[in-house]
Amino acid sequence: MTRQQLIDLIRQRRSFLCVGLDTDPDKMPQHMRQEPDGVFLFNKAIIDATIDLCVAYKPNLAFYESLGLNGLRQLKMTTDYLHSLNKPALIIADAKRGDIGNTSRQYAKAFLDPAGDFNFDALTIAPYMGEDSVTPFAAYPGKWTILLALTSNKGAFDFQYLTTDGQTLFEHVLRKSTQWGTPDNMMYVVGATKADMLDKVRAIVPHNFLLVPGVGAQGGSLDEVCQHGLNSDCGLIVNSSRGIIYASQDKDFASRAAEEAYKLQQQMAQYL
Amino acid sequence: MTRQQLIDLIRQRRSFLCVGLDTDPDKMPQHMRQEPDGVFLFNKAIIDATIDLCVAYKPNLAFYESLGLNGLRQLKMTTDYLHSLNKPALIIADAKRGDIGNTSRQYAKAFLDPAGDFNFDALTIAPYMGEDSVTPFAAYPGKWTILLALTSNKGAFDFQYLTTDGQTLFEHVLRKSTQWGTPDNMMYVVGATKADMLDKVRAIVPHNFLLVPGVGAQGGSLDEVCQHGLNSDCGLIVNSSRGIIYASQDKDFASRAAEEAYKLQQQMAQYL
Repeated sequence: MTRQQLIDLIRQRRSFLCVGLDTDPDKMPQHMRQEPDGVFLFNKAIIDATIDLCVAYKPNLAFYESLGLNGLRQLKMTTDYLHSLNKPALIIADAKRGDIGNTSRQYAKAFLDPAGDFNFDALTIAPYMGEDSVTPFAAYPGKWTILLALTSNKGAFDFQYLTTDGQTLFEHVLRKSTQWGTPDNMMYVVGATKADMLDKVRAIVPHNFLLVPGVGAQGGSLDEVCQHGLNSDCGLIVNSSRGIIYASQDKDFASRAAEEAYKLQQQMAQYL
Repeated sequence: MTRQQLIDLIRQRRSFLCVGLDTDPDKMPQHMRQEPDGVFLFNKAIIDATIDLCVAYKPNLAFYESLGLNGLRQLKMTTDYLHSLNKPALIIADAKRGDIGNTSRQYAKAFLDPAGDFNFDALTIAPYMGEDSVTPFAAYPGKWTILLALTSNKGAFDFQYLTTDGQTLFEHVLRKSTQWGTPDNMMYVVGATKADMLDKVRAIVPHNFLLVPGVGAQGGSLDEVCQHGLNSDCGLIVNSSRGIIYASQDKDFASRAAEEAYKLQQQMAQYL
């Protein structure tokens, strides 16, 4: 999905919501837990209930890998299902990968190759290993690298704020990485719980899309994110995972997910 | 595998070699490339040829993920095979994972849970997201977290040397993370191509094992690594991937791998 297609989709659906598919069998409705394809069936129900209200889905790889081969099989069923729909959505692998160039090329193939098992549109990348760990993902046209800048968790304070030459580590990551990609193929993760830092982020990357996790369960505020993060092309994709997909753990989980997604979409529409 | 078991294994085999299973069908002997289980059969032949010469195997997850579900199935066949042998080896997932605490717990389950599909002994973790992204891996007794400190690639210079309060980022990572684990459950990645930095590393973590990639194809020197990295318990696991497993791309690949592993083991024995 190109930048222009993404912007058009945001305008059409009046939403910049990403639904995080952190699907955990222990939190699914009781009747689905024993189903062999329960994780996929849960995801399918969530997707069917929310696709008109959001522009992206973000399966969190850890939740599938923790179920072993059976989880990864259902991840493929989920991405296959999304590709089969005639309604587009950006499909993001929340994978936090990154390794030496030779290895990152394999990760890029794993997630972004249109001929591969998953064919994601984008994946999240950790910046610690620098340029050659990040640039191989740009080799796939129309695909996106989403680099961690400032994350939403408590541990973000351990290293991301270390200051060198008047700039924090996350500012160094932003500045340096502008040499590795463009607003057409590079986004950044900036946690909603750090909305007060968005002005610093926008000073360095005014045009790039930001993927913003942490609204909802982690305590981030959508209003603050919008006030400091929006740009003239919207420039934001705001993720909610647990607040939507586990709004109910009963049989009404999909309709309750749609209600929560609708609330966020309605707030977002006001900012567009 | 406990620290003492690892030390005993190193003394018994007179080796601290790790064989990196970066198995790429395009580099396997021609006759194996079309086999449905070719990657596993290649790994099995390499393991059978080298297990008396090394103490660890390190499948690089990217190479299996890039083959999709079929690659991950053969990764499981490989770890199952290693577990079935009556000769122990530390089985390391070179995964470079790390995410918010809630998610890292899922990654820990995916790779370290004895009841899971893989049951690795250890996995590599990227430190960018800080404490809660690292500590969930310590919940599994007898298992290891291997945190990236100073990597072997060119991109290591982008951020890992940024200096705050007189200490580089990799020194901050080392120092801070000593609060998150002990020499009994935490190792560090320090690239062989940065052997001149090993004195700085050892000043902060004198007792921890270091996993050292980059000997061979990436240009690192085993002698320099040993001079600056060994401690009284050995304290090193030195990885070689391409230099061993692709020593030949012909039918003699396994015996040629054994020859290369033997050369390294012989050098290592002199240091023990």
